[in-house]
Amino acid sequence: MKKISRRSFNTKLSQGIAGTAIIGSVGLGYGFSPRKEKKKLGIALVGLGSYSGGQLAPGLQDAEHCYLAGIVTGTPAKEKEWMAKYNIPKKNVYNYENFDSIAKNPDIDIVYVVLPNSMHAEFCIRAAKAGKHVICEKPMAVSVAECDAIINACNEAGVKLSVGYRMQSDPYTNEIKRLVKEKPYGSVRYVSSDAGYISRGNPDQWRLNHALSGGGALMNMGVYSIQSNIYGTGQNPVSVSAQEFSSKPEYFKDTDETITAQMEFPEGVVGNLFTSHNANANRLFVSFEKGWAELNPCHSYGPLSGRTSNGKEIKFPHQSQQKLQMDDFAKHIMLGTTNYAPGEMGKRDMIIVEAIYRSIKEGGKRIPLDLGDMGIVRE
Amino acid sequence: MKKISRRSFNTKLSQGIAGTAIIGSVGLGYGFSPRKEKKKLGIALVGLGSYSGGQLAPGLQDAEHCYLAGIVTGTPAKEKEWMAKYNIPKKNVYNYENFDSIAKNPDIDIVYVVLPNSMHAEFCIRAAKAGKHVICEKPMAVSVAECDAIINACNEAGVKLSVGYRMQSDPYTNEIKRLVKEKPYGSVRYVSSDAGYISRGNPDQWRLNHALSGGGALMNMGVYSIQSNIYGTGQNPVSVSAQEFSSKPEYFKDTDETITAQMEFPEGVVGNLFTSHNANANRLFVSFEKGWAELNPCHSYGPLSGRTSNGKEIKFPHQSQQKLQMDDFAKHIMLGTTNYAPGEMGKRDMIIVEAIYRSIKEGGKRIPLDLGDMGIVRE
Repeated sequence: MKKISRRSFNTKLSQGIAGTAIIGSVGLGYGFSPRKEKKKLGIALVGLGSYSGGQLAPGLQDAEHCYLAGIVTGTPAKEKEWMAKYNIPKKNVYNYENFDSIAKNPDIDIVYVVLPNSMHAEFCIRAAKAGKHVICEKPMAVSVAECDAIINACNEAGVKLSVGYRMQSDPYTNEIKRLVKEKPYGSVRYVSSDAGYISRGNPDQWRLNHALSGGGALMNMGVYSIQSNIYGTGQNPVSVSAQEFSSKPEYFKDTDETITAQMEFPEGVVGNLFTSHNANANRLFVSFEKGWAELNPCHSYGPLSGRTSNGKEIKFPHQSQQKLQMDDFAKHIMLGTTNYAPGEMGKRDMIIVEAIYRSIKEGGKRIPLDLGDMGIVRE
Repeated sequence: MKKISRRSFNTKLSQGIAGTAIIGSVGLGYGFSPRKEKKKLGIALVGLGSYSGGQLAPGLQDAEHCYLAGIVTGTPAKEKEWMAKYNIPKKNVYNYENFDSIAKNPDIDIVYVVLPNSMHAEFCIRAAKAGKHVICEKPMAVSVAECDAIINACNEAGVKLSVGYRMQSDPYTNEIKRLVKEKPYGSVRYVSSDAGYISRGNPDQWRLNHALSGGGALMNMGVYSIQSNIYGTGQNPVSVSAQEFSSKPEYFKDTDETITAQMEFPEGVVGNLFTSHNANANRLFVSFEKGWAELNPCHSYGPLSGRTSNGKEIKFPHQSQQKLQMDDFAKHIMLGTTNYAPGEMGKRDMIIVEAIYRSIKEGGKRIPLDLGDMGIVRE
């Protein structure tokens, strides 16, 4: 892909300009000699649930610029299992109480917080205060205020911050971004994105528990639709309206089951969103002036699939999205390349989430948004 | 296709049951002897615009149960052109003033009203009063009240009434209906349908003139999305909410540019609609419990294209949808087979259209609908 060679080029540039200064400021002392460029950053996963075990740890086995250096878990049985499976030394194993002492551990460069949403802020802030770079799993937090607190803590500590938006490093997603930017089919006029699945598990799981999740389908899956509506137009929305649908209140007793939302973008471009914990959908459709592109599946771990109106398939070799995401962040830290999912992006999406919930409360009222270019990453 | 053989079977049944009585009541005296079954019904097209010239007249050349017998036009130059091109005798040519004398013309069995929307009611009612069966192009009219007036006029005259919903006779559409009914992927949970195109023509064209069209994108294209949401769920919605988006008021000075709408169906099934005169989209997506089906293109004249989540293409030999539609109506009249697009269906859709416009006026408020099974055709 061309992108790779452009990134390599930027890398060389950044070495000579801001790289050392930026990195130096956090006191981790990454130099940019050819020898040290090869270093892999050590990542500690905080929370060893199914996403850490099924996606992040396997992705890190193939990563080029980072590796699984440590774990933070509240479950002692998991310590032994993970230490053995991933060859993690005991000194890199923490629990939630002694977590802050990670500050003294030079093996750990990045802390990836994979806890339930309501715990993101606390642990991201503790990680920043420990002088570690931070990846915060999506959704970034359960409120805009918490997003601000995370961003501020990272800024104050001089550490880098990224949100676990793996799609931002995915080649299918990037192909959509390329079509939006390079306009082979003209400008975008309409975008539609659906993200949902039928939840059938324990109704008391944390994703359906408002105190832990901060919300239901919208917080879990809707954030994907928000993301793909925005990269599918290349712009932030100027307003949003939304509706909630409920049919199984005994199961979805605490969180939203299904939400539709409409985004208004500049120049009359419209975005349509659907998210649900009670319907399967995993799509992005982008309508340009002279054609269209779509991904289906769009938001899952892959392999994804896509096509364009000229009859061509969008197809890339499958790679772990999590590997790509964490490698991109490690390169951002080491080489000054782009941060594809900065904290501002997570905060922007939480502003939209809060506006969607507000619109629902106010009977579908259109909520104006004043986002400017917040969270928009342009290369 | 199985459907054909099922219809043939129904045909034989209806001959022995209600056929003669129903047909006899309108005084046209179609018997059901094997000889007379071969008769083709004569259709007169009222309004010789691009749809009549480009789609209906060509479709009628291939029709098996009806033919182009007459024309009604306000443009004398078109009379000669059409008489020559389609071998139409002068006695079967009418203008809008002498149209009512069509009552005395035994060549004309069906009047197909293809005029601008605001003229549908007047000419459908005049056709019914002339004792002719009626096809009313979509949207049926510009108000529910007008739909009622058309239905009442046809009932009083004892003539059959159908709306120009060609998709209801299309095999791709019928495959979706089959999947909804037979549930090979389980029940429907979500449906999404988009219908729009970028209007670039004369801003004074009748479709953008409220007095003639009754509305913009919603009346012209949105009706397709309403239709496909309903056949894509097999049910009528119980509520609808909607939003309007405007970016080119100088061009869309009189009618709606873009509208999104959300339909709530029984059992928590949700429908998402998008329609526009300023964006291209032509899709239907149906999410079942265990799979999905989609058509894209979905609402155009064909060939359509579709696929299902098992990787299979939905594919049928291309036929003129208009031919299929008019043949189905002719068979309904002659043989008592199903009317796939009855007047009640057009009225139901206009109730939804009016609710959508009302929701927009009321800031996106959810408008309850009490439609029962109105317009739902089950075989």
